[in-house]
Amino acid sequence: MTDRPGLRLYGFWRSMATYRVRVALNLKGVAAEEVAVDLDAGAQLAPAFLAINPEGAVPALVIAPGEPPITQSMAILEYLEERFPEPPLLPADLPGRARVRSLAALIVSDMHPLIVPRVRAYLTDRAGFDDADFRAWGQHWMTRAVAAFEARLAADAETGAFCHGDEVTLADVCLASFVSVARGFGFARRDTPTVTHIVERCEALDAFARASPTLQAGAPA
Amino acid sequence: MTDRPGLRLYGFWRSMATYRVRVALNLKGVAAEEVAVDLDAGAQLAPAFLAINPEGAVPALVIAPGEPPITQSMAILEYLEERFPEPPLLPADLPGRARVRSLAALIVSDMHPLIVPRVRAYLTDRAGFDDADFRAWGQHWMTRAVAAFEARLAADAETGAFCHGDEVTLADVCLASFVSVARGFGFARRDTPTVTHIVERCEALDAFARASPTLQAGAPA
Repeated sequence: MTDRPGLRLYGFWRSMATYRVRVALNLKGVAAEEVAVDLDAGAQLAPAFLAINPEGAVPALVIAPGEPPITQSMAILEYLEERFPEPPLLPADLPGRARVRSLAALIVSDMHPLIVPRVRAYLTDRAGFDDADFRAWGQHWMTRAVAAFEARLAADAETGAFCHGDEVTLADVCLASFVSVARGFGFARRDTPTVTHIVERCEALDAFARASPTLQAGAPA
Repeated sequence: MTDRPGLRLYGFWRSMATYRVRVALNLKGVAAEEVAVDLDAGAQLAPAFLAINPEGAVPALVIAPGEPPITQSMAILEYLEERFPEPPLLPADLPGRARVRSLAALIVSDMHPLIVPRVRAYLTDRAGFDDADFRAWGQHWMTRAVAAFEARLAADAETGAFCHGDEVTLADVCLASFVSVARGFGFARRDTPTVTHIVERCEALDAFARASPTLQAGAPA
């Protein structure tokens, strides 16, 4: 770590969105104190946390004591990119930046919002979903997202050792965040060789390995 | 219109994400040819459109003939902001940029993905939802999103005539896009005075008014 600007990250060991922020902080060598918010115990909806983030969700990044936190993982990632530009996680050219942000959104906007705890609660409480129904739901959206991701990686000339050329970008961070939770859904990737190789390269990097959910405070032993 | 860089926007009159892009183009005075993709007829899944955007979704912005399109509305909005910086739709300061992007994500990431046609199809075909069930589902997520949006606007000192100060930003564009479809869900805002006033100010602006779904090609007479 080369920098300690007093950042505090409210997160949860298993949270896919917290993982994305954790990886970006690691890649940029920025230290942040991580505070666990136990989503399994509903701590995100407790008054103490709602006073920090009224949305009742993690991650939330506090950039200075007493300041309102930055919420929403993509807003946090864009903030970190602008405040700590090195190493860059977006390309320099405009079409490249758009491609990376679009790939990231395939995970962050198209897929992830469908499998968060509040959606699970609705489907369980009000639509009669049991565990198998929710797993099938999650697998359906994961299959769709990873197939779309693979199709774009396989088709685009810009794809390299990573999603966009040979350097890690936000697209890789978001793709790896997907894989970090997919296993819990019993999701098996099939016929996605480009995705598989890129995720393997990411997970071999220290910044990704240290962010692994299983290594965080609160994770099952 | 002050500029005609040969942009082509694939969209749909009712699409909330297309609306966001249309408003941003109008605000920046950038002309784009809009090509209708009839989502009601499933045209987004026809081979002719999948050759343009394999994700089978609108909007998709083609920035030069033969180039792959930019997809995902936030990626398109960030692209337009970087390519056509005036008037800016993000503040200059980093915390302000993060706040605007976070507010935008409340709509674009937290709410919108739950009500898109592919989710409706799953809930109807595989979870037994009827029209009333889907309307209740949509109203639930709309209520949650607009309440969170209102809470942040009401609490934050940065809120002005618009979501962030007295100039239109991407937060206003995304908020207005929500309202443009909420009426179709029979969604009535209650106890959200700040949201209501800001949306009224947006809809009084020519750039928003001209983007209205009901004025686009393909809309019911």
